[in-house]
Amino acid sequence: MALIKSWIESANAPETPFPLNNLPYGVFSVGEGDLRCGVAIGDRIVDVTGLEAAGILRADPDADVLDAPFWNDFMELGPEAWARFRAALTQMLAEGAPERVQDEITTFSVPMAEATLHMPFQVAEYTDFYAGKNHAFNVGTMFRGPENALPPNWLSIPIGYNGRASSVVVSGTPVRRPWGQLKAPDAELPVFAPSRRFDFELELGAIVGQASQGPVTVDEAEEMIFGYVLLNDWSARDIQAWEYQPLGPFQGKATATTISPWIVTRAALEPFRVPTPPRERPLLPYLEEHRPGLYDIDLEVRLAPEGKPATTISRTNYREMYYSSAQQLAHHTTSGCPMRVGDLLGSGTISGATKPERGSLLELSWGGKEPLTLDSGETRTFLEDGDTLTLFGAARGEGFTIGFGACSGTLLPALEDPYAR
Amino acid sequence: MALIKSWIESANAPETPFPLNNLPYGVFSVGEGDLRCGVAIGDRIVDVTGLEAAGILRADPDADVLDAPFWNDFMELGPEAWARFRAALTQMLAEGAPERVQDEITTFSVPMAEATLHMPFQVAEYTDFYAGKNHAFNVGTMFRGPENALPPNWLSIPIGYNGRASSVVVSGTPVRRPWGQLKAPDAELPVFAPSRRFDFELELGAIVGQASQGPVTVDEAEEMIFGYVLLNDWSARDIQAWEYQPLGPFQGKATATTISPWIVTRAALEPFRVPTPPRERPLLPYLEEHRPGLYDIDLEVRLAPEGKPATTISRTNYREMYYSSAQQLAHHTTSGCPMRVGDLLGSGTISGATKPERGSLLELSWGGKEPLTLDSGETRTFLEDGDTLTLFGAARGEGFTIGFGACSGTLLPALEDPYAR
Repeated sequence: MALIKSWIESANAPETPFPLNNLPYGVFSVGEGDLRCGVAIGDRIVDVTGLEAAGILRADPDADVLDAPFWNDFMELGPEAWARFRAALTQMLAEGAPERVQDEITTFSVPMAEATLHMPFQVAEYTDFYAGKNHAFNVGTMFRGPENALPPNWLSIPIGYNGRASSVVVSGTPVRRPWGQLKAPDAELPVFAPSRRFDFELELGAIVGQASQGPVTVDEAEEMIFGYVLLNDWSARDIQAWEYQPLGPFQGKATATTISPWIVTRAALEPFRVPTPPRERPLLPYLEEHRPGLYDIDLEVRLAPEGKPATTISRTNYREMYYSSAQQLAHHTTSGCPMRVGDLLGSGTISGATKPERGSLLELSWGGKEPLTLDSGETRTFLEDGDTLTLFGAARGEGFTIGFGACSGTLLPALEDPYAR
Repeated sequence: MALIKSWIESANAPETPFPLNNLPYGVFSVGEGDLRCGVAIGDRIVDVTGLEAAGILRADPDADVLDAPFWNDFMELGPEAWARFRAALTQMLAEGAPERVQDEITTFSVPMAEATLHMPFQVAEYTDFYAGKNHAFNVGTMFRGPENALPPNWLSIPIGYNGRASSVVVSGTPVRRPWGQLKAPDAELPVFAPSRRFDFELELGAIVGQASQGPVTVDEAEEMIFGYVLLNDWSARDIQAWEYQPLGPFQGKATATTISPWIVTRAALEPFRVPTPPRERPLLPYLEEHRPGLYDIDLEVRLAPEGKPATTISRTNYREMYYSSAQQLAHHTTSGCPMRVGDLLGSGTISGATKPERGSLLELSWGGKEPLTLDSGETRTFLEDGDTLTLFGAARGEGFTIGFGACSGTLLPALEDPYAR
């Protein structure tokens, strides 16, 4: 697949993350203006809430679905409406669109540089998986030793846990270092103190765009997925280590979860499908896939100490995952668990096989034992106050790139007294 | 505290669960009518949505908050508004209320027997705790042996995990036996099959009625709690046993969670406060309580095979818990995790010290090894298709009882083929 040319010149620039092939969905505002649904194209955002209200481009002829301002109502319409809307928008933005249409789009669009981006959808519930084999092996080795690194169920189940939807924030939102119960391995009792091992996790988030009531197949699950965002599952490793047995991660993962602001649709990623890896243990039939379930998406993590330039601390690819989002979603429904529009599924940390491909500081510094040296000369085991951690993602086609926009957050120092009012 | 007499005679009957002292909040409909917010009094339901619309009783002078039909908007108003509304309603229903008021209430009320009850609030997120020491010890003994029964963190943290809000249903909703991955202890590989060890868990659910952004104290947490419901955390033990390491319960707890239909307010339970037990290990200061944190609520579990009378299989009391809901909520906020109006916190399974006080079949049948004999002569290890499981709760005062209404569900057989459409 090649670049689809747009009459908006900036969308044809080779390095833009938002060519006409992408058309990701977000929510923006300008100045003190209202929040509106928008679509990124080159260096502009098309105000589709405005286009809908003006009757120029309507996803649903009978009801406003882009006035929320969230994409949830649009998602409700389902895959056929998603495809129609994307096709209509593509036509309006493609080279050769009528002058009248170009004028309308120009009226209903703003320079991206002037816009503030907000949460693109309302998160119904948030589930975080653990589907990267290198990550699971690395973490398991540190927590339980190499013999017991991979839990016995890992090769059979895309294991996951329910996270906290209220913790999900959009890129740019500062993150406050949390307090929590910590217990040093040699201490008899825990203390209540600020987390000292605060970490990021590089993940992709899949957004469920259709509801389900009973179990769904992997094929059906894939049709339910609306799109993807980058996701940083901030993790307080010391809180997590003390709390996680036997009920799993809780407060160690509840401070914040940052997502990138643009929902990259499944349609935009279609040319980048790659298969899940060969299975070491045959999967049960309900997890079998009939299409390559992963995507070839280059991922990069940059860490910038306060006032210093950023260092790339990891590069990997989403194709490293063992289970696809569709497999995770299918498993999620096996018990009859109802899924809803706006559910967010974290892929699990994405780590490649080698050290510079690891998707968390826990792995990169091997539990704090092997500090990283940044370009500024500083070292890091875990995150320090003032650090800005940013994830990037890009699927690279011939002459075009499908970008995700940055997924970024700056770590604020812990409160001095969390109970002071 | 004694019975507060009402001019509605049925509210003064010694055995009614809904005297004027109670005034629990629910959502009801009659026939094909709309869903409306209602308050139980004796054998009637007061249509407070109707009273609000007619301008007779308004919680908020400026906005309708009872037309949703959910109690969430009312909860948003906060504790002072909750108290004012309860006081006004108490006055209108108390003996000696003016004739005009009695006529208005009579107009805006229906016989409970004619009403269908619905979910009383929209569940924002659902968290399930593990705060009953007898239960934790029993289950720990079965899963890990008596030496490692209580996890190391248990005496320091009110441990919990995020559950699935979409799974929460109101009493009376049938529950379908789930399929899932099961692995027999001696099997090499799991199979995908209907759960064979489907269980209930006797819990109390606390409803968060005020939002928070940062950590809150136990005292503040208590003020955030709007009220309580009975809660059955249906549990597929075989799915849970295979999936739960290391990320905690997931599909084993996602089929359904049944709550009783009436929210019993904190105000109604105030006379029944009892302290949490003495601490074996001192709690960290952030978990210290300044008031007795539990309530004296008698609990009972009845199991009725299809077409047979019910057998009481357990009797216990909410005072058996080790941690209060306020302590659980305070812990939930330590990381900065935002709490929202409508969050539901399951207490954890409530089990007394002796066998007939255990709050799950897992404990009552000791992992299936000691079948229970029901009054009908049948035996049970876990639930069988067609079984109806019902929880009851009652706080008993002098001459009155604060009842919760039944929390009931009937187990439907598993689908023959969960993927047949």
